[in-house]
Amino acid sequence: MPTLVLIRHGQSAWNLENRFTGWWDVDLTEQGVEEARAAGEALAAKGLDFDQCFTSFQTRAIKTLNIALEAMGRLWLPVEKNWRLNERHYGGLTGLDKAETAARHGDEQVKIWRRSFDIPPPLPEAGSAFDLTGDRRYAGIPIPATESLKDTIARVLPYWETRIAPELKAGKRVLVSAHGNSLRALLKHLSGISDANIASLEIPTGQPIVYQLDDKMNAIDRYYLSER
Amino acid sequence: MPTLVLIRHGQSAWNLENRFTGWWDVDLTEQGVEEARAAGEALAAKGLDFDQCFTSFQTRAIKTLNIALEAMGRLWLPVEKNWRLNERHYGGLTGLDKAETAARHGDEQVKIWRRSFDIPPPLPEAGSAFDLTGDRRYAGIPIPATESLKDTIARVLPYWETRIAPELKAGKRVLVSAHGNSLRALLKHLSGISDANIASLEIPTGQPIVYQLDDKMNAIDRYYLSER
Repeated sequence: MPTLVLIRHGQSAWNLENRFTGWWDVDLTEQGVEEARAAGEALAAKGLDFDQCFTSFQTRAIKTLNIALEAMGRLWLPVEKNWRLNERHYGGLTGLDKAETAARHGDEQVKIWRRSFDIPPPLPEAGSAFDLTGDRRYAGIPIPATESLKDTIARVLPYWETRIAPELKAGKRVLVSAHGNSLRALLKHLSGISDANIASLEIPTGQPIVYQLDDKMNAIDRYYLSER
Repeated sequence: MPTLVLIRHGQSAWNLENRFTGWWDVDLTEQGVEEARAAGEALAAKGLDFDQCFTSFQTRAIKTLNIALEAMGRLWLPVEKNWRLNERHYGGLTGLDKAETAARHGDEQVKIWRRSFDIPPPLPEAGSAFDLTGDRRYAGIPIPATESLKDTIARVLPYWETRIAPELKAGKRVLVSAHGNSLRALLKHLSGISDANIASLEIPTGQPIVYQLDDKMNAIDRYYLSER
């Protein structure tokens, strides 16, 4: 039975500071490193093993994967990295403290930006310090200026269809290390979560989510590793 | 002009203990971690950048690469791992202390095993603690029982020809993190070092070697990064 494990990166510096991060390449905190190690140890202790790994182009997800693989004695597994697994792009909110943003724009507006399905945050201001157009890793890639959750899902799912699902169908056990919203895209697709409900689904950092799938990639079972 | 950088993994626990390591999966020491970080910082400081990375199936080389890439802000680069870049397999010497081995077999014999071109160490004893046939990473791979340097070169070069050289010919800048003897294979090939001389060529840990190549993969220049 195809097995897929999803893990959201461990705590990042801006998770801790409560700032909108998105595509900005923030590192893990010490706690985040520990979460990643504990996730790898728990996967190994419960007998879960893998043949193929996927992650984003962002340091916090790549490091979470590397640290978990090391804890499992599986650093040698193949890892494919792709921008389509990146976090949702928060546009002009990138780098802003969430409380400050709420003080300026009002709680309601921030809640809409964070929790609506199809409303993107405002565009970045010209000359933003968080502009990524000069970042070599995204050369030739259509960097979004801002994304709604719907936009994020629209660029994650083609990667699922063309790269991840085929590995599962070929009998590979797959581990994906990614981000809150790129994982929401996969959870929505696999578990049939509605547009209205997906944005409020909280995915904790460093907690592996296990999917048992059938051959047509329908979810038979889904649980947090820590539950069983 | 195609650029290739080779790096031997940082100091490992058995480098420090002076034991034959080969395919046994020994971790880096703290000094080895520091060497890897310093290598990444030096590469970035000297303006060297990469498009594709290669490494072995062994933790010490993979970690050296990951640590160096992190120091360069390049964790997102594609990395391909392959057993053909593994260290020379030391057969029945694996795990043995080099001084003890010399006391038992004589300095001359140990020197022959270490420094001859085509004489492999003895086969492992039955039931050796260092048997890798049950290691999942090598499933389907022709694990050698023991290797001369010539044997190591014979399995490294097809990987150079089929995977590494094509990336360089396509204009990619390539970083290879590997082992003393798998790197000797590449140095012998690229710099035309003789059978008689290659075994005594010492490659220090954590010191990037830079090759400038022409389009036909002839070496125009080769130097240690620390020299210039």
